[in-house]
Formats: sequence, structure tokens, C-alpha cells
Amino acid sequence: MAGGEGELKLLGTWASPWAGIVRIALHLKGLSYDYVEEDLENKSDLLLASNPVHKKVPVLIHDGKPVCESLVIVQYIDEAFQGNGGSSLLPADPHQRAIARFWAAYIVDKLVVSWVQAFKAKTEEERLEGTKQMAVVVETLEGALGDGECSKGKPFFGGDSVGYLDVVLGGLLSWLHGTQALCGAEFFDADKAPLLSAWAERFGALDAAKAVLPDVGRLVEFAKVRRAQQAAAAAEAAAAAAEKK
Amino acid sequence: MAGGEGELKLLGTWASPWAGIVRIALHLKGLSYDYVEEDLENKSDLLLASNPVHKKVPVLIHDGKPVCESLVIVQYIDEAFQGNGGSSLLPADPHQRAIARFWAAYIVDKLVVSWVQAFKAKTEEERLEGTKQMAVVVETLEGALGDGECSKGKPFFGGDSVGYLDVVLGGLLSWLHGTQALCGAEFFDADKAPLLSAWAERFGALDAAKAVLPDVGRLVEFAKVRRAQQAAAAAEAAAAAAEKK
Repeated sequence: MAGGEGELKLLGTWASPWAGIVRIALHLKGLSYDYVEEDLENKSDLLLASNPVHKKVPVLIHDGKPVCESLVIVQYIDEAFQGNGGSSLLPADPHQRAIARFWAAYIVDKLVVSWVQAFKAKTEEERLEGTKQMAVVVETLEGALGDGECSKGKPFFGGDSVGYLDVVLGGLLSWLHGTQALCGAEFFDADKAPLLSAWAERFGALDAAKAVLPDVGRLVEFAKVRRAQQAAAAAEAAAAAAEKK
Repeated sequence: MAGGEGELKLLGTWASPWAGIVRIALHLKGLSYDYVEEDLENKSDLLLASNPVHKKVPVLIHDGKPVCESLVIVQYIDEAFQGNGGSSLLPADPHQRAIARFWAAYIVDKLVVSWVQAFKAKTEEERLEGTKQMAVVVETLEGALGDGECSKGKPFFGGDSVGYLDVVLGGLLSWLHGTQALCGAEFFDADKAPLLSAWAERFGALDAAKAVLPDVGRLVEFAKVRRAQQAAAAAEAAAAAAEKK
């Protein structure tokens, strides 16, 4: 602990991109914390008590008080530890803050949804629809980096230093690097999205990214096994339901 | 205009609950604004230029600079016009802010999704599943009001005065009052959710709510017509697709 901030505990899983977002933010703010790896098949009493509504990771517990939902947690970290680790994640100007929040919502609503659609596709048609949507997202983010609304031609969405939007997209980085292996399409394509690809390299080279983000190969293996297990469980449930009829 | 805040213009539609959320916030902050009713079948060039990513209402344009996405806009209004209309919508304490943001996300992700599921259901089974999910949401919100995490037993989620979460839920109020007519189940049930029902009465009695929220009967009629049109268009598209095969 950097001292004076109280006790911080994070409940997460190593593969959770949402927990990754929070860990990146904690690292950038120079905050140390106890990390508790949760087993989602057998959730701890602490997780169930701390996030009774969603029962999901990540949960940040600060001096005994839980904060849930990754984007809410990152904003909490930024507001509760102002001045830590240098600059704030969200800019001071209200309009720039609104732009950062707009794009963070876009990443959750559009990028993640299209990615998951491609990843969980049951048919080639569904997969292609997911990757098509994802290509639109990539083009849109490339435009956001290019037209300077977010980054004004600077190295990060946050400008010269990493900001809120960098943290949100950066927390997903290992999963995005696994897109080809998991969804059959590249996410970062230096020809189609040179600015976004250069951003991904810059972000991945940060100490915070190196310290926090999981190994892409391990993640891809984990995701493939999990998808196969879920498909098998779904097929079993469908067969059981058909037998009942 | 209350003076000194610059020019505010809101692009919305009378029936949009998301535009309603923004209008409630503007009213509570004592801000006057030009309101532009959009025709979503024939969107204005201003809307398309102001929200090129989603092309949706609401958009708040402040001195020529657009802000999109209702929850982002409400936070923008709160931050850009600090001190207007008395108190802030979001509390000052970071943990209380996180709680308000958590529940606002819950309303968007769980309440609205279950409501829409019940509203758009194609079968009785789907409708029942939607209303079942909605009942869980109501019970959860009733708990949030009851256990005092948000409201601490005070009249609003924001405490003694209306806060961020009140604005987000309150903007949806006319739609929620139309739940019985549109989804075949009550949303506010004084027996099952007495605190939430009392909150709805209190919120509906506010000047801001009376000034902004659409008439429930008109809304229900509009929604029924629109649902029928969409169902007819979907059936037509399906028939055309079948003919092609």
C-alpha cells in the first residue's frame, strides 16, 4: 500500500477482462491491494456478500466497503484517490469527461457485444455477422483516434498520458489479441486500423499492462476449453428438455 | 436560459424515455434550453452530425458541442453546471457516487432489458419470462430503497432531495406506469413494493416530472401502434426472405 489510503482488496479472476480493467487502473494510480482470485464455480462468501445483486467479479473492497461493476470501480478509484499516481484518469473538463464516458460505453455496448457474438457463434453465418459488427467497431474507434476528438493526435485516448478510455480498452487487450484465434478474424490489423494497432503496441508496452494483462496463449486455451464445456452443457440441457416433452 | 451558461439545445422525441431522463435533469438544474422534436423516420442533419456513431436521441448541444447518451449527458449537466438549481445530482462522497452509478447501470442493464423483453415478446412464454425478470428487478430496487444503501430511509434515492438515480428511474416513469397496459403486469405494486410505489408517487408530484413526463395514455397508444407496425414489418421481411429461398 502506498500509505494512507486505507485497505484495498480486489476480488477477480485472472481471465476476467473486467477485473483486468480495474487492475490496470489500480496499477496506474500506484495503489497496492490484496488480490483474491475467485473460483466462479464456487464463489466465496465474501464475493456473494459484497456483490449480492450480480454475484460477479470484479469487486473492489475499500476499508470494508464494496464497489462493484468495473467502470464504476475505475471512476471510484479516480475520485477516491485523487492525486495518486500523478494525473487523473478522467480529464478535468466536463466535455472531455463526457467524451471519455461516451466511448467507454461504446466499448462495453458495441465492441464487447460484437466480440462475444463472434466468439459464441453457433453457425458460420452468426460468426460472420459478429466479425462484421466488430469491423464496424474497429473502424469507428480508428476514426475516434484519427479525428482527434479523444486523443487530439496524441499517443493515447487520454492524450499524452493514459486516461479512462485507455484503461477500459486496455484492460481487454489480451482478449482482443486473441480475437483471431477465438473469433477467426483479426482485431488489430495494421493495414485497416494503423492508429488503433499502434495504440495497442504502446499500451501493451506500459508497465501497468505488463504487470496485469494475462498471457494471450493461456487465455486462448482457457477460452476454448470453457466454450466447449458450455456448448456441451447446453447440448445436454437441450437433450434433457427434448426427452421431457 | 438562467443566464451565463451558454446556449443549450436538446434533440429528443416526446416519447423517448432517454430524452425524458435528460429533460428531468435540465429542469432540476433550472436550465432552460431549446427543445427540438426529432422525427426518427426522417432524422435531421443536425442529429446525424451530432451523434454520427449511434444516430440516436437524446443529444444535448452546449455552445455547439454535442454530448450523447443519456447517462453521460446527465453527468455532464451535473458537472458543467455545478451549483445550478441548488444541489448536485451526484453526491460528493466517492463511495456514494459509486453506489448511484451502480444502480443507474442496473436500471439500464436489468430493468430496461426485462421490460423490453416483456413488451416485445412474441409468445406468452417470452412475455412471462420478461415479467418474471422484471419482478426480480422490482424486488431488488425495493431492497435498495429499504436497506438504506441508497436512500438511508429518506424520500428519494438521492436522500432528502432528488439525485442521479432518481433522475434515471424517474425519466422512465410514464413508461413504467404503462407496464400493465403494455406488458401485462404491474410495475409499481403497492403490496409487493410499497417503498418503490411511494417513491413513484413522490417523484411524479415534482414540478420537473409534471413539466416533462409524457401522458401515460398517449404513450401507451403510441407504443401499441409502433409495436404493431414493427411486427408487421418483421413479418413482411420474413415472408420476402422465405420467397427468395
